[in-house]
Amino acid sequence: MSTVAHYDQAFLDGDKQATLLVRNIGQLCTLDSGDNLGPRRKDEMTQLGIFEDAALVVSGDEIAATGPEVELMARLFPDGPPVALQVVDAGGKAVIPGFVDPHTHTVFGKTRQDEYERRLRGETYLEISAAGGGIHSSVRDLRERSETELVELATVRLREMLALGTTTVEIKSGYGLTLEDELKMLRAAKTAAEEVGLRSVRTCLAAHEIPHEYKDRRRDYVNLVTDEILVRVKAEGLAQRCDVFCEPTVFDLEETLIILSRARDLGLGLTVHADELVPFGGALLAARMGADSADHLIKIDEKGRRALAASNTIAVMLPGTVFSLGLKAYAPGRDMIDQGCALALASDFNPGSCPINSMPLVMAIACTQMRLLPSEGLVASTLNAAWALGLSAEVGSLVPGKKADFLILDGDDYRLIPYRAGHNPVESVFLGGLRI
Amino acid sequence: MSTVAHYDQAFLDGDKQATLLVRNIGQLCTLDSGDNLGPRRKDEMTQLGIFEDAALVVSGDEIAATGPEVELMARLFPDGPPVALQVVDAGGKAVIPGFVDPHTHTVFGKTRQDEYERRLRGETYLEISAAGGGIHSSVRDLRERSETELVELATVRLREMLALGTTTVEIKSGYGLTLEDELKMLRAAKTAAEEVGLRSVRTCLAAHEIPHEYKDRRRDYVNLVTDEILVRVKAEGLAQRCDVFCEPTVFDLEETLIILSRARDLGLGLTVHADELVPFGGALLAARMGADSADHLIKIDEKGRRALAASNTIAVMLPGTVFSLGLKAYAPGRDMIDQGCALALASDFNPGSCPINSMPLVMAIACTQMRLLPSEGLVASTLNAAWALGLSAEVGSLVPGKKADFLILDGDDYRLIPYRAGHNPVESVFLGGLRI
Repeated sequence: MSTVAHYDQAFLDGDKQATLLVRNIGQLCTLDSGDNLGPRRKDEMTQLGIFEDAALVVSGDEIAATGPEVELMARLFPDGPPVALQVVDAGGKAVIPGFVDPHTHTVFGKTRQDEYERRLRGETYLEISAAGGGIHSSVRDLRERSETELVELATVRLREMLALGTTTVEIKSGYGLTLEDELKMLRAAKTAAEEVGLRSVRTCLAAHEIPHEYKDRRRDYVNLVTDEILVRVKAEGLAQRCDVFCEPTVFDLEETLIILSRARDLGLGLTVHADELVPFGGALLAARMGADSADHLIKIDEKGRRALAASNTIAVMLPGTVFSLGLKAYAPGRDMIDQGCALALASDFNPGSCPINSMPLVMAIACTQMRLLPSEGLVASTLNAAWALGLSAEVGSLVPGKKADFLILDGDDYRLIPYRAGHNPVESVFLGGLRI
Repeated sequence: MSTVAHYDQAFLDGDKQATLLVRNIGQLCTLDSGDNLGPRRKDEMTQLGIFEDAALVVSGDEIAATGPEVELMARLFPDGPPVALQVVDAGGKAVIPGFVDPHTHTVFGKTRQDEYERRLRGETYLEISAAGGGIHSSVRDLRERSETELVELATVRLREMLALGTTTVEIKSGYGLTLEDELKMLRAAKTAAEEVGLRSVRTCLAAHEIPHEYKDRRRDYVNLVTDEILVRVKAEGLAQRCDVFCEPTVFDLEETLIILSRARDLGLGLTVHADELVPFGGALLAARMGADSADHLIKIDEKGRRALAASNTIAVMLPGTVFSLGLKAYAPGRDMIDQGCALALASDFNPGSCPINSMPLVMAIACTQMRLLPSEGLVASTLNAAWALGLSAEVGSLVPGKKADFLILDGDDYRLIPYRAGHNPVESVFLGGLRI
């Protein structure tokens, strides 16, 4: 437990004014370790920078101070808070940073519960795909929908995610697979996130699958991605990053390298769907290219783990997908933390393999099924997830100067989040200092 | 899909008046099969008695009619619904029976997230127990609390369960383990359920554990249960049923038989915590005694399965517990349905092994981890669960004459319930015809 309050120097100097005081916080998990030099690894993942009986001061949309309430009040408001200051009483509950969900496919058309049922009946992915299901069904469906429709659908989903505590979200394209449909998808993601007020990072995943019309000329599709889609996406500022589904049955290592190299040249961040179905070297490639993250990693091999541990590429795990598919083998999260990998969690929210958009449930699955501690689950869902998105200077922890994105929980202990799986632990969401 | 509407004859005869009309139901899952002779087994568990473009008519607190909206309106309200009739537009969404949760320990004091974390650190139950944890910690805690405090805590939890769609709940004692504390617990359960308006069945589980003070004189505790606790519980009408934790390390088969026989003589219904940790014959005993249900069943053997399949004793499975404990082996739900057992699902909500009180999440776990179909999960969470509580004549399906306990979902397909794990699928809850 920390006892010395943290202040924004500009605030102490009087250059910034307090606009919000949250007091009577039973447990304030700042995740502030004093230094913020890199993503959290090993034991650092259990250090939550907790203040008890705490308060938090906001200036505008930023954190101005955090610490024990008695100390903060004595230093900042010795005569009591100014009448004009907005004061929120947290009622002794816990306060944590808003969740950062660094891997989602939130823009899609129809849900696919029919396939979910078929899988439970024992049908294989190939059978489901042959019957018109799988990712290509989402592609067909998305191409037929207007941008307005996609915005409306995504807006509803993002509001649900916000109510469950997600304040920053990554959203991928990848159900368009034509220039115009990929652009449409990314514009819809941008509009919907702005509409809801969520912070968003958008990722071009035109390399999600080879579209049917290119199945006999794969190289032409890779060229379309590198020479047209990524160029336009960058030119129009529609995405900050590029992703590739790197698997033997989708894009091989050479194709992945070609696409990501082009993205890097264009100044896009990099991430990879890696080593999900077979150990294939995707994580190793991601680490070597200095990608933001390597995601999935169910089948990652020892070489891949060591490469991630030695790099700043975040290992993003998606245990909701394994749960939703009813698989038994989760990514080796426990071992990889112990090996020194910087782990983050994400929902992978999508209509096929993971319809879960609740970060609290993802934390619960990570704890019970991958043996993460609740503290590790929280760091993986906030600060390390912010690192995975290149946003660690802005969000993911309650450090003076960062954005005032935080949650008041309905309990007095962050451990209640995974413990109470299926329950929404969020009482109030604050985004940039404003209560939603 | 059904096409012929179902009516309460007394309603058609004009002896009952319509008080509520729910129209524009996209998918009405009545679970009404025309007959209602026994719990659902095998293929019957997939038959949901679905009407599309449907309506539902309520008279007082009971269902009066269900069927296609066009047919119902033409027959009942050829000139349009009377002005005085309350009309709810379901907006094309799905309507299902309220969930029946037939196994919970909702009355307890403190939560035990500290143990949850210890387990994740690799501590064994014995180590946790030696450090003051486990069931005895809930016993110590409960004994120290007033009835009023317990009512307040349980009321909050029951309201959460209601918001997640549970309209009938079973609540066990079992953290008192003295005459007065068991009575206190059951009174608290009764008061809290009445306060929230939930239907409740209460079960005396004084045989949950041998209390520390009896550890060297087990037989004296069994006598206390049979000669005092059950007698008083029955005399004061505090519980309808008796439960025993039948395991080699808790109550053996002979003790279980003694306690349940006494309960039967007193006119209490019977249920058993059976075959959870080792195959021990608890389910077989339950079936032979004609118990309402045998619960847990993770380690049930072939003999137990056959006995359940040949009886009306419901196999109640608690997959949330397996999930919460991070175990890999679930009860053999898929196989037991195929063998002809009547399966129900329950939350097992308790502060130690399963802090989950969401029946939607329990359905999701049952589908993805035990390979139940969404339809089987729904029958197991409603009609068969009502059978497990001896309430099949009143709740569990939307049959004319039964209580009007139903949910309007926020989607148009019941399969979205397990598909969207972690999401609360309930838009509105109706209990006895009244919107909550």
